Amino acid sequence: MVERLSDEARSRALKELPGWSPVAGREAITRTFTFRDFNEAFGFMTRVALVAEKSDHHPEWRNVYRTVEVVLATHDAGGVTERDIRLAEAMNTIAGQRGGI
Amino acid sequence: MVERLSDEARSRALKELPGWSPVAGREAITRTFTFRDFNEAFGFMTRVALVAEKSDHHPEWRNVYRTVEVVLATHDAGGVTERDIRLAEAMNTIAGQRGGI
Repeated sequence: MVERLSDEARSRALKELPGWSPVAGREAITRTFTFRDFNEAFGFMTRVALVAEKSDHHPEWRNVYRTVEVVLATHDAGGVTERDIRLAEAMNTIAGQRGGI
Repeated sequence: MVERLSDEARSRALKELPGWSPVAGREAITRTFTFRDFNEAFGFMTRVALVAEKSDHHPEWRNVYRTVEVVLATHDAGGVTERDIRLAEAMNTIAGQRGGI
């Protein structure tokens, strides 16, 4: 089982994760991504879904047109773990890439 | 522009939409779909996304593992319109289909 990060380790990890912040009142991290349109937002979600499924670690997320609001936590561990940090990093990488040539 | 349905027309439409109900305090309709796993939930979302994009009418939705919570309203019309009813019907149809042979 993956271990829950201490408050200090979580804060340290968040410093390396642009755009992410703690969730008030809950041991979780959140970021809202904004894209150009629904095509781009859902394209992002699709790429993230493949990563999530492969690593068997899934986000809580809400999509309204061109925005995707994400919350990450590891339920089994009762807090934020390295698995959340890795998924958050993957999301930042995917969101930072614009497709096409 | 598509016209907002009256309260009566909305109630009548909801009777034909298994699983859907009004949102409290807001002119919108909602349904939570539950699937076997994330694969099936996100497969549903992907099929719905194509329908939504084609008709240029998009849901507000939240996915947590195998559940998808949907809210539909037509922002321009300030309420529920025929476009929401059609999208809700399409979602019910897609959710009712299980892939494979």
